[in-house]
Amino acid sequence: MHSFSPVIETLISELMKLPTIGRKSAERLAFHLLKSNPKQAEALAKAILDVKHRIIFCSQCFNATETDPCAICANPERDHTVICVVEDPLNVLAIEKAGIYNGLYHVLQGRLSPLRGVTPEDLRIKELIARLSGAQIKEVIIATNPDLDGDTTALYLSKVLKPLSVTISRIGLGIPMGGSLEYVDEGTLKKALEGRKQL
Amino acid sequence: MHSFSPVIETLISELMKLPTIGRKSAERLAFHLLKSNPKQAEALAKAILDVKHRIIFCSQCFNATETDPCAICANPERDHTVICVVEDPLNVLAIEKAGIYNGLYHVLQGRLSPLRGVTPEDLRIKELIARLSGAQIKEVIIATNPDLDGDTTALYLSKVLKPLSVTISRIGLGIPMGGSLEYVDEGTLKKALEGRKQL
Repeated sequence: MHSFSPVIETLISELMKLPTIGRKSAERLAFHLLKSNPKQAEALAKAILDVKHRIIFCSQCFNATETDPCAICANPERDHTVICVVEDPLNVLAIEKAGIYNGLYHVLQGRLSPLRGVTPEDLRIKELIARLSGAQIKEVIIATNPDLDGDTTALYLSKVLKPLSVTISRIGLGIPMGGSLEYVDEGTLKKALEGRKQL
Repeated sequence: MHSFSPVIETLISELMKLPTIGRKSAERLAFHLLKSNPKQAEALAKAILDVKHRIIFCSQCFNATETDPCAICANPERDHTVICVVEDPLNVLAIEKAGIYNGLYHVLQGRLSPLRGVTPEDLRIKELIARLSGAQIKEVIIATNPDLDGDTTALYLSKVLKPLSVTISRIGLGIPMGGSLEYVDEGTLKKALEGRKQL
């Protein structure tokens, strides 16, 4: 017996398909589930299936939701003239939690990554263009992550959206609040200097 | 909407019950499952349930198994006079993989930890004593992990097993093969010096 029983091996290999979970972590998780209360394991299995069966993507903004359109798109009190473009639903939550934005969103469901073969066709860019062409949108705020792929995506979007008569902006990049010049990387410092504001 | 839909929140909170998974990791895993192929999510849910429904613990050594007794206890070619005591099934696999041991095992299913309220009654110590009292066991090798709780467990076991007429040993502690004196911690160096062998 140089390996676990096939039932455990199957669970380990399924867990290893999840991001950031390697062999050792998968083994630990599998044995935790094995030792845990059966109710806990069943609740987890059910939660996984529920997410797959009950969560859909909003047909307008492509955020994860149980209703279509989602609560944000359906809310008449939000500003329907501004769209904030983000990579995934986690980013929507991050902005919503800050409570500083009252417009709509557009979830790309990924970022351009030529190295990993993610092309514009894989993202919800067509759908974004369609939303802008038809309606009363005045501004598009591109809030992809400030890293190589996120910047590439922002650059691509700014090019394809330029012909449309909307204001296009990118979220501000620079030193985070509470951050320290000393510990900030060079790329961030460069962006902070470029983005300086006159007082 | 300052949080995800309840279905997603349920999955996140179930994932957070797993060891080493915090809120951020749980969110990432949940959204990975949400985006993944439905078959992958279903396979994971099924694997979790299968482990709970089909894996039992061997009534002799308490290793995880599909059959009782397990393949190791039932193997007549193994040495039934030696028992190696380990904390959990992952340790059994580690020793089996090395292919250097042909005796039996006894899985404690944990380690003593006064701080976390794990007492001797929570471990399979009673069952170990019963195995030693009845049968032809000549040696018990204590292979709990060499850390605070593992050492406490080893010390406790050596005390309670002493009255029984079996040889009790502890796996060797010292510098690992390929290790470097320079990078080894003081505790390990101390154990290595104490465990020195005359040439």
